[in-house]
Amino acid sequence: MSWGLHPDLAEDGDLAEVADVIARTRRRPPLVHCISAAVSMDLVANGLLAAGARPVMTETLQEAPAVTEIADILLVNFGTLSTDAMDGIPATVEASRRAGHFWVLDPTAIGAAPIRTRMARDLLAGRPAVVRGNASEILALTGGGGGRGADSEDPVEDARGAAETVAGQTGGAVAVSGRVDLVVGAGEPRRVARGDPMMARVTGTGCLLGGLVAACLAASTPTPVSDSTPTPAPASVPDPTRAATAALAATVWMNLAGELAGWRAARPGSFRMALLDALDEVGEAAERLDADRGLEI
Amino acid sequence: MSWGLHPDLAEDGDLAEVADVIARTRRRPPLVHCISAAVSMDLVANGLLAAGARPVMTETLQEAPAVTEIADILLVNFGTLSTDAMDGIPATVEASRRAGHFWVLDPTAIGAAPIRTRMARDLLAGRPAVVRGNASEILALTGGGGGRGADSEDPVEDARGAAETVAGQTGGAVAVSGRVDLVVGAGEPRRVARGDPMMARVTGTGCLLGGLVAACLAASTPTPVSDSTPTPAPASVPDPTRAATAALAATVWMNLAGELAGWRAARPGSFRMALLDALDEVGEAAERLDADRGLEI
Amino acid sequence: MSWGLHPDLAEDGDLAEVADVIARTRRRPPLVHCISAAVSMDLVANGLLAAGARPVMTETLQEAPAVTEIADILLVNFGTLSTDAMDGIPATVEASRRAGHFWVLDPTAIGAAPIRTRMARDLLAGRPAVVRGNASEILALTGGGGGRGADSEDPVEDARGAAETVAGQTGGAVAVSGRVDLVVGAGEPRRVARGDPMMARVTGTGCLLGGLVAACLAASTPTPVSDSTPTPAPASVPDPTRAATAALAATVWMNLAGELAGWRAARPGSFRMALLDALDEVGEAAERLDADRGLEI
Repeated sequence: MSWGLHPDLAEDGDLAEVADVIARTRRRPPLVHCISAAVSMDLVANGLLAAGARPVMTETLQEAPAVTEIADILLVNFGTLSTDAMDGIPATVEASRRAGHFWVLDPTAIGAAPIRTRMARDLLAGRPAVVRGNASEILALTGGGGGRGADSEDPVEDARGAAETVAGQTGGAVAVSGRVDLVVGAGEPRRVARGDPMMARVTGTGCLLGGLVAACLAASTPTPVSDSTPTPAPASVPDPTRAATAALAATVWMNLAGELAGWRAARPGSFRMALLDALDEVGEAAERLDADRGLEI
Repeated sequence: MSWGLHPDLAEDGDLAEVADVIARTRRRPPLVHCISAAVSMDLVANGLLAAGARPVMTETLQEAPAVTEIADILLVNFGTLSTDAMDGIPATVEASRRAGHFWVLDPTAIGAAPIRTRMARDLLAGRPAVVRGNASEILALTGGGGGRGADSEDPVEDARGAAETVAGQTGGAVAVSGRVDLVVGAGEPRRVARGDPMMARVTGTGCLLGGLVAACLAASTPTPVSDSTPTPAPASVPDPTRAATAALAATVWMNLAGELAGWRAARPGSFRMALLDALDEVGEAAERLDADRGLEI
Repeated sequence: MSWGLHPDLAEDGDLAEVADVIARTRRRPPLVHCISAAVSMDLVANGLLAAGARPVMTETLQEAPAVTEIADILLVNFGTLSTDAMDGIPATVEASRRAGHFWVLDPTAIGAAPIRTRMARDLLAGRPAVVRGNASEILALTGGGGGRGADSEDPVEDARGAAETVAGQTGGAVAVSGRVDLVVGAGEPRRVARGDPMMARVTGTGCLLGGLVAACLAASTPTPVSDSTPTPAPASVPDPTRAATAALAATVWMNLAGELAGWRAARPGSFRMALLDALDEVGEAAERLDADRGLEI
């Protein structure tokens, strides 16, 4: 009952791990606080709900730091970067870390405007557990590459060095999206050569992948238990193994859903709808796979 | 030709009233000014259009008070509560009331952030004709409950006392959404046990219900006629009977549409599309039902 | 292999020109910088992607002027007109013109609020290559008409004089949307009597038409070549022939897509999805038509 993954991903261990993370996300749906692009908010929210997670969206300085405390994890996506988001993001990242949560950074379109490039580099000091972007964006984080909006013109492998540099700085994982997706962090880099070209014809699929990474990471993170247990290391210091596994699981989830949708829909409007349906369907399949193998610990 | 409503709703009187309000909304489409969440704006606007109403959306202090004057009714949904909305809402409510319009309050996610809880309580003094929320939100209005984002964790009946308290304060109606929806205001509480669990897997269905309440209320409100008629009581003082009927009609409309959609679509992406189609379809059915019975006055 | 266009459009010349512009948009997808309504952003972005173009959305004063320089063209749609957009629009139009780009103005809902009416009139001095709006909006630009939100209550032909006045001021073209669309600018006015009434039941179809006009105009504009060639006239002075052709091509594209969608979907939710699919399909058909006739220069 293999999903026919890319050779680099074919080992049973990876596949079982991926199914396990997806299944956990379904069984105890995490509340994902998303600071996200206005243009892709609808897809991110509906994609998280389709996957089985629960989104909450608010970005102002007055509210976002308070809301992030009751969420399980924070996703910061630059997106259309309103003034509200520019003002709210730094304090919200701080509040999320103080609450002991992991957070995910999606530095959309950096390189295109100086202000967001500077902002993304500053935020790296806050140690995002996962950074997700296309090759141009990851290159821009370390001072390279170009970037015209959210379209990447650099191949993923060109950004491998930059991704490893960023992972070194944060202590977490970096996911580079492209024709073949790349996840670096703990252990060997992992690649996912799945998906469908139509994914690039729907706005916000990259942003949604960032949301799924956050959901998978929250679901695979043990929740703090009673006061009598020794204080765990604060979650705001990334766990690179868990981060890389969550990034890999989300990437597989998104790309398998894209592939399923591509079989069913040949045009962008119906593809978008089929993609949301398929996120739910792949999630269900992972639950079955996970139950069959008895992976749940 | 019954819609097979819940026993509490089965009396002919209620059914006829509901069909009549829906039919009026279709025949003279009201212009609904929505200050709404960025994340659900698309569903609210498209849902109102599918139902047969006309949405207009703008939230700044510079514009919203002027725009609300040319609309038929105002919906205030906290949603993602931008700085623009925070600044614009109080003056827009005032302008709407000065124009003699009713208004509807949807205090999304109050309880989650102190600022919106305080804001919602202050706005109650402006006497919204209908307040719509889930149980957590209605409880938070009166100082109870918790609330983690827009997900309600409290059962609807737990919020009945709070709903009655709020209705007492505003003089209007309160609609509590959940598995069995509850409308309190004039007369006996009414319950609607319809809908589909998939409605919770689409972002903004609660916000859209708020929009439908506003549309139904505007459509069932007599428009001021010539100058020679005696000045009517200002509309800004709620009419509890009309408010409760509009809230009931919108709740039935939304939930029957959800049920129809659930028969046709088993996954969240296709369900969302089917839900919009079904709002149109239930609207048409209500027009036929209403015409058959000759309810139009 | 005619598309059965309206008599005014039936001459081979017009049809060939339209197919040629659409085909160019597909072959070298322009990057369209959209400052657009929050409520219609999703449809504008997904519609441009479905058509084959590439959208980038950002509106703040801090970013939009920088982003517009790397785009091919700018669309300014007032839409829900946030404070960010109000602050960012004038400087972004200036930056776009300095970069030698054309720009398109969609003065959504002017007439409804004084601030946007004044703003639209001021922006006309920046010589938008195409102004797109419904009859009410075009009338309001020259001081006439009314306007209740984005619904036009004035027939298109009533706005013909106003459209010609505006085209005279800008030196570009004006597209008036309605049951029969009208394009004025160079040469005789052109009319397009296609589309489907269901287009008015989906939010943002007018905004998307503005986006398609921008994409078509960018695609039909020769890009500056080597430094040794003589400096071309700055693009910020509209070319009325090219502007009118782009507006016509976009209007035909949108309306044929609407018609196709109307054959396939009878309700608003499925119509919206079918419309996005049809934009892609009409684009492909235009590419085939264009290739058959060998129109590519």
